[in-house]
Amino acid sequence: MTPGKFITLEGGEGVGKTTNLDFVVRRLRERGLEAVATREPGGTVFGEAVRGIFLHQEEVRPEAELLLLFAARVHHLREVVEPALRRGAWVVCDRFTDASYAYQGAGRGIERSVIDFLRDWIQAGLKPDLTLLLDAPVDTGLKRAHQRSGPDRLEKENMAFFMRVREGYLALAQAEPDRIRVIDAAQPLALVQAAIASQVDWLFSDHV
Amino acid sequence: MTPGKFITLEGGEGVGKTTNLDFVVRRLRERGLEAVATREPGGTVFGEAVRGIFLHQEEVRPEAELLLLFAARVHHLREVVEPALRRGAWVVCDRFTDASYAYQGAGRGIERSVIDFLRDWIQAGLKPDLTLLLDAPVDTGLKRAHQRSGPDRLEKENMAFFMRVREGYLALAQAEPDRIRVIDAAQPLALVQAAIASQVDWLFSDHV
Ligand SMILES: Nc1ncnc2c1ncn2[C@@H]1O[C@H](COP(=O)(O)OP(=O)(O)O)[C@@H](O)[C@H]1O
Ligand SMILES: Nc1ncnc2c1ncn2[C@@H]1O[C@H](COP(=O)(O)OP(=O)(O)O)[C@@H](O)[C@H]1O
Ligand SMILES: [Mg+2]
Ligand SMILES: [Mg+2]
Repeated sequence: MTPGKFITLEGGEGVGKTTNLDFVVRRLRERGLEAVATREPGGTVFGEAVRGIFLHQEEVRPEAELLLLFAARVHHLREVVEPALRRGAWVVCDRFTDASYAYQGAGRGIERSVIDFLRDWIQAGLKPDLTLLLDAPVDTGLKRAHQRSGPDRLEKENMAFFMRVREGYLALAQAEPDRIRVIDAAQPLALVQAAIASQVDWLFSDHV
Repeated sequence: MTPGKFITLEGGEGVGKTTNLDFVVRRLRERGLEAVATREPGGTVFGEAVRGIFLHQEEVRPEAELLLLFAARVHHLREVVEPALRRGAWVVCDRFTDASYAYQGAGRGIERSVIDFLRDWIQAGLKPDLTLLLDAPVDTGLKRAHQRSGPDRLEKENMAFFMRVREGYLALAQAEPDRIRVIDAAQPLALVQAAIASQVDWLFSDHV
């Protein structure tokens, strides 16, 4: 049996994470692998309750936001991700801890050392085998996201925030080039998916 | 103006925290001080939402529980406790971080170093000026709590848990005897309140 692998998709709003999560899962299933598609909070009762807090609050302090996200993360890890990996399934997850570095770290200014500490504590060495970072200019992603769910006037502040997030993600990829593969997500979908396919196939062939 | 002081009440179930919080607040107000009575999550919208998670979940993992509590704590600190202290009010809080050491640490087995880290991060040096640890045998407190809200059959496991919590609290008091004053809460209420009054008066006289 192929041991389970953990793949995450990362990137800003509208870059194509959800679209390409399906693509990755289909590709793995075509190979006969058990593939679990998930995202935090992953449909657990606890996670949905935490998610509800984010949806209904006007303002959540950055520190509280980080702690809540890690609360949902540890629950999702223990209940969904780790059991799947243990039984040999491949897990494909829409965003994971890299998003905390990009959004709460680079975006909202939380010290990296705090995120490092929480990650080391709850992940205890577990990290994605492959992270697909879908990278596109902020306005490209936002335009796509708005087409998906209706227009939404963006403040200058938000643009600056999303740009910090994008830079944060790219800095992570530079620090861990073997794990985090940057995919040019501004390309037409067929080209994006060709790039993704080659990364996934490489991971697959490397581990049979 | 007297600078604001931060007093917390700690202890297991039914030891008399809520009863004596009122007593402390009344005593401070008789001195003409502004006294704010609070408890986590402190009536903030965010905090109530977090509280809802605890009330409606069957099982929350210890790590997730700790992270959620600290999320509520940081919000309550920034929104309620710190602004009150800044304007010179005295804040009297029903449970605070010592409860995380006792319940999630001693009770549920989370490493002390993790709680230390979270405390240092969100409190940044702020700690209670006085902590009143109401200590009583576990069954004394539980009997009182049950009389308050109807009987409730306790499992052996729960007794062991509450005993670890009590020992955890006493260990904290031993490590910080100047801040944490142990009050024998098994005594009749009048004697408990005489002991509390002398601690509060000492803090007051020491800081006028
Ligand atoms: N490479 C692409 N070119 C054009 N449109 C795309 C591309 N990738 C995704 N989209 C579209 O952009 C929108 C946002 O994609 P989605 O997968 O929901 O992004 P995310 O999950 O990263 O926010 C969707 O309508 C999707 O069909
Ligand atoms: N010293 C005491 N002796 C007897 N009963 C007490 C004493 N202190 C509190 N009680 C009663 O015990 C019950 C629990 O007290 P409470 O203040 O709600 O405890 P806690 O907030 O610590 O759970 C209440 O009914 C209260 O009136
Ligand atoms: Mg999506
Ligand atoms: Mg109470």
